[in-house]
Amino acid sequence: MLVWIDGRPAALLPVTDRGLAYGDGLFETIAVRQGRMDLLDRHLQRLADGVQRLGLPLDLALVRAELLAFAGEFGHGVAKLIVTRGDGLRGYAPPVDTHCRRILSGSPAPTYPVRNRLDGIRLYPCATRLAEQPLLAGLKHLNRLEQVLARAEWQDPAYAEGLMCDSSGRVIEGVFSNLFVVRNGELLTPSLARCGVAGVMRAEVIARAAAAGVTTRVGDLDRAALLAADEVFLCNSQYGIWPVVALDSHGWPVGKLTRKLQGLLADLVDV
Amino acid sequence: MLVWIDGRPAALLPVTDRGLAYGDGLFETIAVRQGRMDLLDRHLQRLADGVQRLGLPLDLALVRAELLAFAGEFGHGVAKLIVTRGDGLRGYAPPVDTHCRRILSGSPAPTYPVRNRLDGIRLYPCATRLAEQPLLAGLKHLNRLEQVLARAEWQDPAYAEGLMCDSSGRVIEGVFSNLFVVRNGELLTPSLARCGVAGVMRAEVIARAAAAGVTTRVGDLDRAALLAADEVFLCNSQYGIWPVVALDSHGWPVGKLTRKLQGLLADLVDV
Repeated sequence: MLVWIDGRPAALLPVTDRGLAYGDGLFETIAVRQGRMDLLDRHLQRLADGVQRLGLPLDLALVRAELLAFAGEFGHGVAKLIVTRGDGLRGYAPPVDTHCRRILSGSPAPTYPVRNRLDGIRLYPCATRLAEQPLLAGLKHLNRLEQVLARAEWQDPAYAEGLMCDSSGRVIEGVFSNLFVVRNGELLTPSLARCGVAGVMRAEVIARAAAAGVTTRVGDLDRAALLAADEVFLCNSQYGIWPVVALDSHGWPVGKLTRKLQGLLADLVDV
Repeated sequence: MLVWIDGRPAALLPVTDRGLAYGDGLFETIAVRQGRMDLLDRHLQRLADGVQRLGLPLDLALVRAELLAFAGEFGHGVAKLIVTRGDGLRGYAPPVDTHCRRILSGSPAPTYPVRNRLDGIRLYPCATRLAEQPLLAGLKHLNRLEQVLARAEWQDPAYAEGLMCDSSGRVIEGVFSNLFVVRNGELLTPSLARCGVAGVMRAEVIARAAAAGVTTRVGDLDRAALLAADEVFLCNSQYGIWPVVALDSHGWPVGKLTRKLQGLLADLVDV
């Protein structure tokens, strides 16, 4: 595995890192193909938002340069960037002199069954709820125990993803994906104002749909509205779009708009 | 700094650790004096609860033996134990073959002003709310961004601690302390069923108060009930008990029961 810490090859970090101690940091997982990073501007935009909201003194221009250099050397697969608040000894107070740590690692691209994209997937109904925390909502931060608990709920490979609701019962997202529904030719994706991760592919779907004349509403979605949808799909930056065809005893067809959006995003997915 | 990883001296860990990636683990900070750990059984009890709830395959007998050996070598200060789900490459699913990682580090005992204990402290009213997540409530897990954000709200050393409420406005705890109020000679401490950390000193306060004939109720506490209390105090495993004398424009005296409990816990605090 190719790993850089603060721009240099390394594979170990001090036990004093606040990313370990408190999950005090952010991450991005970026698809890399032919030495280039997909959706790099969107990843950097989300990172900039997180850095601002967590008060991390990160040099974003340096991060961009490092990502470009890493992609060139790495070539193909998934690059994971972790940014932490650096070292701290004890106590939650950020050190007066904070030096963020940048950890970049490259792994092979994940291999998902082709049928996920072609035939659609079954959703596991996760019992784990997302707590509502507006201060952290939307960020891809390092506090991910809810996702760990949710993903541990099922082992059956018949379920490619799980559905997560918030503590009020609103439908929010997959464990590692964002969710869209189609109703009357329009897209609706859940608001991420209270919880959830604002995926870069979610933003890209909204943008390319808009360019093709398809409107997206962002708002609340309850289970009844999900079941009543004409089409349902998931997206993330690694696999693009998966149609959803089943949740519990309910089924949806793989719909026309889902297929159209898969086509519009084909340049971002290895086939 | 004395550091052991999996029982051996080391100061670096792999970037693939899931404690870093997801905050997928637990920690304990244990006061060590004359080569012995204070409240060790309570720390291990909370760890056992966390291990069970997070599904971590941790050998608790091994951890106990390691803590005893570490305390003997370390002598005096604070021992911090971090337990993680070990290494993972990508994805939230726990590896089939999980090997938890144990990280033990020793630091000097924190030095707090003596006046905190004697004269009491002012509480900073934190705007950061604790999200309600029953699946994680009470645990000392590694997802601590809420505490990081709360502690970053104030720099003025006139405030020794901050007060945190949950998203419904209930009073829960300090940023690194538990909270008790006294009303009509009884103790009340907030329920930690929805959020908060179940401190070992909180449990010890309840036990020693009971042995002295003082009842503790555990339940909900709103701001009005806090302000109406006869006495207010905080506790944690490092400093014991601090009386609370001020929050915003409201004040409380350092009360008799608070002083009595400080006396009952004197063997657990360096003076």
